[in-house]
Amino acid sequence: MKINENFLKIRNNYLFSDIAKKVAAYKEANPAADIIRLGIGDVTRPLPLAVTDAMKKAVEEQTTAEGFRGYPPEYGYDFLRSAINRHDYAVRGVQLADDEIFVSDGAKSDCGNIGDIFSVDNVVAVCDPLYPVYIDTNVMAGRSGDLLDSGRWSNFHYMPCTAENDFLPALPDRHVDIIYLCFPNNPTGMAITKTQLQAWVDYANANGSVILYDSAYEAYITGEDKPHSIFELPGAETCAIEFRSFSKTAGFTGARCAYTVVPHALKVNGVELNQLWARRQATKFNGVSYITQRGAEAVYSEAGKLQVRATIDYYRKNADVIYNGLKKIGFAVYGGVDSPYIWLHTPDGLTSWEFFDRLLHEANVVGTPGSGFGPAGEGYFRLTAFGDAARTREAVERIVKIFG
Amino acid sequence: MKINENFLKIRNNYLFSDIAKKVAAYKEANPAADIIRLGIGDVTRPLPLAVTDAMKKAVEEQTTAEGFRGYPPEYGYDFLRSAINRHDYAVRGVQLADDEIFVSDGAKSDCGNIGDIFSVDNVVAVCDPLYPVYIDTNVMAGRSGDLLDSGRWSNFHYMPCTAENDFLPALPDRHVDIIYLCFPNNPTGMAITKTQLQAWVDYANANGSVILYDSAYEAYITGEDKPHSIFELPGAETCAIEFRSFSKTAGFTGARCAYTVVPHALKVNGVELNQLWARRQATKFNGVSYITQRGAEAVYSEAGKLQVRATIDYYRKNADVIYNGLKKIGFAVYGGVDSPYIWLHTPDGLTSWEFFDRLLHEANVVGTPGSGFGPAGEGYFRLTAFGDAARTREAVERIVKIFG
Repeated sequence: MKINENFLKIRNNYLFSDIAKKVAAYKEANPAADIIRLGIGDVTRPLPLAVTDAMKKAVEEQTTAEGFRGYPPEYGYDFLRSAINRHDYAVRGVQLADDEIFVSDGAKSDCGNIGDIFSVDNVVAVCDPLYPVYIDTNVMAGRSGDLLDSGRWSNFHYMPCTAENDFLPALPDRHVDIIYLCFPNNPTGMAITKTQLQAWVDYANANGSVILYDSAYEAYITGEDKPHSIFELPGAETCAIEFRSFSKTAGFTGARCAYTVVPHALKVNGVELNQLWARRQATKFNGVSYITQRGAEAVYSEAGKLQVRATIDYYRKNADVIYNGLKKIGFAVYGGVDSPYIWLHTPDGLTSWEFFDRLLHEANVVGTPGSGFGPAGEGYFRLTAFGDAARTREAVERIVKIFG
Repeated sequence: MKINENFLKIRNNYLFSDIAKKVAAYKEANPAADIIRLGIGDVTRPLPLAVTDAMKKAVEEQTTAEGFRGYPPEYGYDFLRSAINRHDYAVRGVQLADDEIFVSDGAKSDCGNIGDIFSVDNVVAVCDPLYPVYIDTNVMAGRSGDLLDSGRWSNFHYMPCTAENDFLPALPDRHVDIIYLCFPNNPTGMAITKTQLQAWVDYANANGSVILYDSAYEAYITGEDKPHSIFELPGAETCAIEFRSFSKTAGFTGARCAYTVVPHALKVNGVELNQLWARRQATKFNGVSYITQRGAEAVYSEAGKLQVRATIDYYRKNADVIYNGLKKIGFAVYGGVDSPYIWLHTPDGLTSWEFFDRLLHEANVVGTPGSGFGPAGEGYFRLTAFGDAARTREAVERIVKIFG
């Protein structure tokens, strides 16, 4: 009996537990401190009423034999796949078949599980900083090689995203097979334009690479020149898989519903990746709760759309308050326009963790050290717009008082 | 870019789609036929009111900022892990820590994903017939070797379970690393006694094997000598992982909630499998809906327990009707006592599919050919007790009329 030794390579990511420990220690030493948390990427506003109404109705249906629903279809109910297709793709001119859309319990699950369909031998390209799931799941699968002193893995191709390159990764100068891209980006909050993303689509098609495109934050995009979906770009259907979620769009972090698009046209040596993903999901997944899917469908109702928009506007105003408040006092701030994340250059040459400590001790505000998202995040810091509006304003006022 | 070639080895399992096609063709030729379906392993009774009430309350909580719940804990809410521990284990004298229980979206997901933590080199032992997920997921992971003419894979160790051995697998005569056991069994409906299972626990401990124990149907057990959990047996905590589900217990096939128990004492070369599974779930899974978990918790309320019991008794009566009805006319019938599945020897030397055709054409009753669960299932047939009571009685009357 042997375990998968690759699991032992992963160091526990202590980022959020380290943060929690520091906050707890400070709180113990200063019991009266009123701490404001702008660190976590979780939403806080209630679910839209259209969604909860639909869920209650779906729960009620389960109380009779006539209304009861057993095993859901593994790839999602037709009503939801079709609603996603019409409202998220067709309206933007993207032509998809409903069976190119796979409903799931979360973009994190899909981003992790998608590796099942690829050979262990593929070379993986990732941005730095990044959402740690992209790296950790590939380490666990055996694609990483060894951990170097730099904090990077020997087999991955890293693409630094810093102020120097406007937080846009450079096209690889070597062959890579799998490319993780996330726009609007977590953690930098930066979006990509259609022209910029087209270069990646063209690269992938020319090199036989597959782009794994995470657009979990597309609902925050403001500019017309920025794509909500990679499939808005010609040629993406032969090189890209897209991950989407209801989490940050409609507050489903706790309700769990997402979807992944795998076009039929995307083939490797003649094999449709759509068929491989369908096989993976049919074999190792059993679908999403009917109640949840009815809630997700209601996101696309007239009332649902208005309510979702109101919540996003609420977070957007928070982002605006943070972004402009810090900009006014001379901080170098990024993101925040097409994203709920504000990424800032730490002032006075402080490291990410030094800035974290000052913010906690002097302003009683908690954020996330950029270095926790990868070596190239050192000297940066993430604040999120998902908090309460009044508390967010107060947090910014406190930061302004200290650093202004 | 290379795909995972192991995915191409899997032949689509056409069992249920073949059944659907045959039924559709018959229905088209005989539009007036009143077909009764006793083939599918899905439940049909409504969710217990205690569960739907709890779900409605949980949905209502999501309509306010104060009650809103974001990301659930990856391993399940404490309230559910603790309720599972008390009501499913402590009452049977099994001592578990709450953090040995991992809540998930389904036993199918867990049975499939558990392979992530094991090396590809392990030798896998499976019963024949079996729940196809055990085999398919290991083929996809690269543990199968080649498909032989017998319909078996070269690297797996098969353990036939037929009337000749009372449907109990024999201990392997070679070294095996991973052993899948499911009791009460799907598809045979047969349970195992504590004494019989103890032999497996002892074998696994002596040989350094890990037992993956699927007890999704434990709620149907009637006999005191049959274990609901493998952890009722001394020594199981150092050799077993257990999969459980609310699906067949409380009608959660559509609501999606299950759990997996990985004891801290289960180690391979000093490494706790609990830690590996924790890492797998934290990296590639994001927890189960709060609403669903509140529903699952209500299964253990006083009202919930009574309602769950009533539903199981309903199905149990169906099982009784099928079992005794067929026994009376001389059929060799198995299962049905500790299980919602009745497994029967096809009469008159018919193959599984020949019997399927006769049942469909002459009785207008649909079941599942045993050969669809593995070569050793040939000559057997599965009927399920999850249907409507009156329809189940009628189905049995029709079969009796033809074969009696």
